[in-house]
Amino acid sequence: MSEILADIGEFGLIQRIHKLLQEIGVHTPGVTLEIGDDAASLRPRPGYELLITCDCLMEGRHYLPRHITPMDVGRRAMAVNISDIGAMGGHPLCALISLGLKSETQVADVEDMYRGFTKELNPFGASIIGGNLTKSENTDFIDITLIGEVRKENIMLRSSAQAGDAILVTGYPGQAAAGLKLLQNAQSNENLRAHPLVQTYNVPAHRAREGQSIARSNKANAMIDTSDGFLADLGHICQESNVGALLIQEKFPISNELKKAAVQFGMDPYQLFLQESDDYELIITCSPEYVSHVRSAVETVSNTLISEVGIITDTVKEIQLKLPDGTKRQINPLGWDHFKLKGGENV
Amino acid sequence: MSEILADIGEFGLIQRIHKLLQEIGVHTPGVTLEIGDDAASLRPRPGYELLITCDCLMEGRHYLPRHITPMDVGRRAMAVNISDIGAMGGHPLCALISLGLKSETQVADVEDMYRGFTKELNPFGASIIGGNLTKSENTDFIDITLIGEVRKENIMLRSSAQAGDAILVTGYPGQAAAGLKLLQNAQSNENLRAHPLVQTYNVPAHRAREGQSIARSNKANAMIDTSDGFLADLGHICQESNVGALLIQEKFPISNELKKAAVQFGMDPYQLFLQESDDYELIITCSPEYVSHVRSAVETVSNTLISEVGIITDTVKEIQLKLPDGTKRQINPLGWDHFKLKGGENV
Repeated sequence: MSEILADIGEFGLIQRIHKLLQEIGVHTPGVTLEIGDDAASLRPRPGYELLITCDCLMEGRHYLPRHITPMDVGRRAMAVNISDIGAMGGHPLCALISLGLKSETQVADVEDMYRGFTKELNPFGASIIGGNLTKSENTDFIDITLIGEVRKENIMLRSSAQAGDAILVTGYPGQAAAGLKLLQNAQSNENLRAHPLVQTYNVPAHRAREGQSIARSNKANAMIDTSDGFLADLGHICQESNVGALLIQEKFPISNELKKAAVQFGMDPYQLFLQESDDYELIITCSPEYVSHVRSAVETVSNTLISEVGIITDTVKEIQLKLPDGTKRQINPLGWDHFKLKGGENV
Repeated sequence: MSEILADIGEFGLIQRIHKLLQEIGVHTPGVTLEIGDDAASLRPRPGYELLITCDCLMEGRHYLPRHITPMDVGRRAMAVNISDIGAMGGHPLCALISLGLKSETQVADVEDMYRGFTKELNPFGASIIGGNLTKSENTDFIDITLIGEVRKENIMLRSSAQAGDAILVTGYPGQAAAGLKLLQNAQSNENLRAHPLVQTYNVPAHRAREGQSIARSNKANAMIDTSDGFLADLGHICQESNVGALLIQEKFPISNELKKAAVQFGMDPYQLFLQESDDYELIITCSPEYVSHVRSAVETVSNTLISEVGIITDTVKEIQLKLPDGTKRQINPLGWDHFKLKGGENV
């Protein structure tokens, strides 16, 4: 019989994780104390600010256990946090992992989850320095606090967009929403893990390297990641910067996969692009003259697509969509809202 | 009808909390960005290390909602984290709060919980700088990451106890275990919130000021908080420092309240002192000649009792208990272990 958490206990699990991390993890310079005391400690570098973010995945709500491997759950949980640090222009340094796990959870699955965490952290030379384990009755959760660093002069905010800025976006937002929809519609015995849209949903490709490079270029005005969906996160920029936006629908990057899925769902692909979808792409605003500089900054680290999809306007907190026939309509930001009742259903 | 989370949604709740914190919270010097962007940011002070800890409370497991107010749940969740920073000799700076809440939770209760957080943080000039909200299906949880600072030369570890050290402990460990036992035995309509042992369990008095003062005195060798119970945490010191301990039972501080409760339970009060109990007192080891210095360091900040209960020995990882009749017996550290099956019961 496979070993479960109830067999080895909390302290047994801590020891196993500790040992595993010594084998597969890295050591972050500046971390002076890792797992094993009341707290971890970090010696910050002069001239840098620390960035601190926290994101939690709940089983069944932020991932569907039947459709994802434990390793990919770990990758997903870490990628969404790395995305936040990257969207501020920062570099990930170290993470604390707080897990709520059912006592019948297999030890090997927890170890695989940690392999997922380190797969995402190791390329940044970032390590796991602490955390917490607690027993959960019904639903597993993974709550991660990630700490990063950024040079004081390079920090990127959502509150500094300027009217007249070009609006850029990386990758193909909406793919994660389509991937999730595929999983929700799946037959009980259907295995969709290899479907590219499902892969985008399960393990989103954060743009932390691109974000860092853009921040260092000093040519962008505002940046945010699309964790709530493109429109909702553009809405956050408009809200915090006290500006509006005009979007040009025909400029939206829509992948062939998304087009195919939209046909299958009987949906408008542009709606999938705009709506709630956790793709973890970046929205960047910059003066039109610097668009090519931002493109170059991204090209130095990856071949990620950058699309220019509209402009920032001075019509405060109003977002307009220009359709191919030239007409314009106002659209409302609406992102993930887990508590709110929508259409009579608790989402 | 009282307002619940489903009425105002995640973003509505974030706004309410944001507004509340502006009224009742403080601003930590060095925090350059609080709630409202992808991550918070902090400018560390030169010469200081950052301490980072993370502790999670699960409803029903780490607090019993029927026997505690939402404000005290907030205080408890924050106090256990402050305790960790204090046990390293540090000063709390800022916190991230990750909440998993049922959608029928009352908004006023969440606001009271935040009043509890700030009640504990404000005296340190520490603030809430970020976090996460997610919907929980069955069980609420509160996961806090707390960041503190400590001068490099003052950091206190559990791994640096020396054979020959005196073993000191603050306060009256075991009281929280007795408080919890009272609650578990309570009649369905019994209100025990005002009972002093229950109060100790519900809102433990961390010793962060005392810990900081002891660290600054530079006279202690090792320190840990008693979050797993006195014996288990002394066990952690022995394990990490590669030493043993001899405890003198008649020196154990046993409060009158604990004695009374022990009679009521038909238990040995010394067992309650030793066993798993989350009192969040401090265990300190120091050279015998510095005991009075450590006492003085504590006296400068509070009138907390300090008891000398034994000595560190060179019998590696072995803890002995000397009974009043002069006989000695070996005892085994055993602390909280939420996954492990004990006595056939899942605890």
